[in-house]
Amino acid sequence: MTKTIDFYFDFSSPYAYFGSLFVNDLGAETTWRPYLMGAAMKQTGLPALVEIPIKRDYAALDIKRTARLYEVDFSMPSYFPFMSVKVCRAFYAIEEAEGQPAAQAFAAEAMKAVWSKGPNMSDGEAILALADRPYLAEAMVTQDIKDRLRTETEAAMARGCWGSPHFFVGEGDTAEHFWGCDKRWQIQQWLEARW
Amino acid sequence: MTKTIDFYFDFSSPYAYFGSLFVNDLGAETTWRPYLMGAAMKQTGLPALVEIPIKRDYAALDIKRTARLYEVDFSMPSYFPFMSVKVCRAFYAIEEAEGQPAAQAFAAEAMKAVWSKGPNMSDGEAILALADRPYLAEAMVTQDIKDRLRTETEAAMARGCWGSPHFFVGEGDTAEHFWGCDKRWQIQQWLEARW
Repeated sequence: MTKTIDFYFDFSSPYAYFGSLFVNDLGAETTWRPYLMGAAMKQTGLPALVEIPIKRDYAALDIKRTARLYEVDFSMPSYFPFMSVKVCRAFYAIEEAEGQPAAQAFAAEAMKAVWSKGPNMSDGEAILALADRPYLAEAMVTQDIKDRLRTETEAAMARGCWGSPHFFVGEGDTAEHFWGCDKRWQIQQWLEARW
Repeated sequence: MTKTIDFYFDFSSPYAYFGSLFVNDLGAETTWRPYLMGAAMKQTGLPALVEIPIKRDYAALDIKRTARLYEVDFSMPSYFPFMSVKVCRAFYAIEEAEGQPAAQAFAAEAMKAVWSKGPNMSDGEAILALADRPYLAEAMVTQDIKDRLRTETEAAMARGCWGSPHFFVGEGDTAEHFWGCDKRWQIQQWLEARW
């Protein structure tokens, strides 16, 4: 059976970026599913990381250290935290027109832009310029795409996502839920042999 | 230079138990430093895991999975969550009388008791029976030991601990802070070669 990973993330999460750098190298077929983490946090009443000084300070250290581990340039965008609704809609519009691989390639470029001083991914015009697809301006604002993002966000929450990233490893109902980039090694072990 | 790990934990944390199962196998000299996580959570205003249903459900799954990974019997104690103040004081009383290795061995037994239906580690009499040391009944209630636990808890918070476990890897002021059992693999990499 094909091994699969559903990769849930929010574009405004640094750990989503780190997750995107390795999720396709784990030997499984991946489906990227951006969602609006803000909606989940609102429903669960969870505070944002930046609201808790002691965790925020640790996260600042851990994020820099993780960027070094993955050998990527990294800086926080001037517009952080940001609403990722537009870039999410662009992702699903590209996915519907061209499929997952094209959407993943776009998401990878968009995340690189967010976390290494590229174009502003909270801005619709900058997203369109980066994506460089004539159909996208109209496609990303249709009711279908708005509904798709709402449905994806609700599905993510129904599966138990509240943060970013979450990985569902396996197949369908038997998929195993792992939260956070630090689960990388356990996910690898799980793919080799469930325990 | 000797590689060192300061291992901060609260006896009432399942992840502290899992951390205790591997922290001494990472090739570093370890110092175990139990502290009162409740004091840190009170100061930071962080909600306990059990207060957030979506995280609690995930944690329940993750804790069982982690126990299987480390091949240990595991069940939640009937008295969870519990105040770990007495077992912490017993730890430091043993450490002062006999040194770290003896205190670590006691802590390992105490955590095994907590997480595999052993004697009740919130209960002073059960702690004394498990420790089986004539001097302990008096030693664990001295003002010195009470002060020691308060000092250790304040020091843990000053270093940035709010949860369980936290690992400080390296030496003194240059020690690197890692939070959570899932950091095991990064700690191993860090000990091999800082990045």
